[in-house]
Amino acid sequence: MSDIAMIEAAAERLRGHARRTPLLGSPFLDALAGRRVLVKAECLQHAGAFKYRGARAAISALAPEVRARGVLAYSSGNHAQGIALVAWEYSVPAVIVMPADAPRLKLDNTRGLGAEVVTYMRGKESREDVGGALAEARGLTLIRPFDDPQVIAGQGTVGLEIAEDAAAMGIDEAEVLTCCGGGGLTAGVALALAARAPGMQVRPVEPEGFDDVARSLRAGKILSNPSEQGSLCDAVLTPAPGQLTFPILAAHCGPGLTVSDKEALRAVALAFLRLKIAVEPGGAVALAAALWRGEALQTDTVIVTASGGNMDPDLLARALREL
Amino acid sequence: MSDIAMIEAAAERLRGHARRTPLLGSPFLDALAGRRVLVKAECLQHAGAFKYRGARAAISALAPEVRARGVLAYSSGNHAQGIALVAWEYSVPAVIVMPADAPRLKLDNTRGLGAEVVTYMRGKESREDVGGALAEARGLTLIRPFDDPQVIAGQGTVGLEIAEDAAAMGIDEAEVLTCCGGGGLTAGVALALAARAPGMQVRPVEPEGFDDVARSLRAGKILSNPSEQGSLCDAVLTPAPGQLTFPILAAHCGPGLTVSDKEALRAVALAFLRLKIAVEPGGAVALAAALWRGEALQTDTVIVTASGGNMDPDLLARALREL
Repeated sequence: MSDIAMIEAAAERLRGHARRTPLLGSPFLDALAGRRVLVKAECLQHAGAFKYRGARAAISALAPEVRARGVLAYSSGNHAQGIALVAWEYSVPAVIVMPADAPRLKLDNTRGLGAEVVTYMRGKESREDVGGALAEARGLTLIRPFDDPQVIAGQGTVGLEIAEDAAAMGIDEAEVLTCCGGGGLTAGVALALAARAPGMQVRPVEPEGFDDVARSLRAGKILSNPSEQGSLCDAVLTPAPGQLTFPILAAHCGPGLTVSDKEALRAVALAFLRLKIAVEPGGAVALAAALWRGEALQTDTVIVTASGGNMDPDLLARALREL
Repeated sequence: MSDIAMIEAAAERLRGHARRTPLLGSPFLDALAGRRVLVKAECLQHAGAFKYRGARAAISALAPEVRARGVLAYSSGNHAQGIALVAWEYSVPAVIVMPADAPRLKLDNTRGLGAEVVTYMRGKESREDVGGALAEARGLTLIRPFDDPQVIAGQGTVGLEIAEDAAAMGIDEAEVLTCCGGGGLTAGVALALAARAPGMQVRPVEPEGFDDVARSLRAGKILSNPSEQGSLCDAVLTPAPGQLTFPILAAHCGPGLTVSDKEALRAVALAFLRLKIAVEPGGAVALAAALWRGEALQTDTVIVTASGGNMDPDLLARALREL
């Protein structure tokens, strides 16, 4: 089970490898939100998303002889790129199971990082089945995208950095909105902040219609989404919160928030114009909630994750037209 | 005259105000360049460009009663936004003289930051004349965009950060390519590195046809551009190196480099895709030189400034079509 000690141990292993990403802001965004908005720019992380942290935390924790046989991941894209990059850093094989309809940039980049890509049909095949069979056949270690204690610990280093940087800015009270798929980032950040910045509360943000985490938190048990398709926010489309992540979310998070695809796209455009960062729609849902769900927020300062930036250029063009 | 002591004093005054920007990189860019490329992402600086540093350094150095009367700047855009933001932080008036054909985003943002904008016709009127008359009439202090010792010192803090971050990565030898207009950034970085990282050499990069600095360095005297119009790289179009900046450039810089508008646009697109940052064409010329002037470079690692990110969205769309 992940805890603050595991997160701090992961931070030690990530030192000199993971990038310490900046906490950005803009007076234009503050004016729009009616409060101070700080953006943890994890799109600037290696391979373009926070996922590198969990990947490095998990792979660095493997015994060397196990690691040498290689790793396997199933992922809608960003986890895949994180695993591929870390495997390349360690010079070990990586096999990535990806949905056939993942953004082309994510498929190409994963291959470009030296990984072997195996595709499956989202909604028809189970990526767990496809991945599990491959792992067994080749002696690869499966690194799950969120339901893995070391992955959660690695994502939790985002929370340690938020706590440190906010403290340096004199901020000890804030709602921290996270872009939430399976809950790895949200759980890790919630654990880190509960220990290091108890005046902060994490609240998961999801796309409308894919609010499994918000509904699960309200119900007090794991609920699923009816579908895994139909939102532009592909990075945060997962069937349900994880067996490991959900208890952490239930213990530490405030109520979930949802935003529309159109709001996520507008947040993508504003992040580009005002913060000069490329954020993909799934990585922009937390910023969208900070900007357009103000009535559901309480604190003077809201901190959001901009979780990833891997999008096809056409999508940014479309986002800019939404402004 | 600017020197390392002034730069370090400026760094002290900027602490807690200027953002410490990250040094980014991507294995995809390294492969393209055939060497390691590190990108100092000053587009993530407040107001979207390194210019905030010089503005804050200069305005913070004014006597309080002088500062209170207000400041004036003439600028193609990024300096204007930097000055406007710092004036707003100090709650003092700012008047900005800008070319009437500056990108609309820059005009709007400058007004959005509370400054009064006065436009002039580039190539027909002298911004120095327009600005000087206004300053005298209203008791404003003119903050020049590059030929001011405190502005140069402020931009030099970029060099201090490059020296520190490179040392932490074990890099003590590198060519440092700077996007160069009037030479404020280039001179400041060159002074800082000469003192703090003597194994690094600064080389200015300019758009083809506007290579006043490269030609001036070769000639050993200040030469002018025939025109101030005709490049997409508006941020670095200035008539000639400055009286204060040129002697510093001549003392410390290696030969200048030039890139085409098309190469700058391709660097804009690659910065978006590979680094997840918005870089305007004028702020991408150094990255373009790292990628496509490799035959003129010597060091295994090249560090470039991504100086600013204030561009109209259409320009990014156009850049993405150039790939």
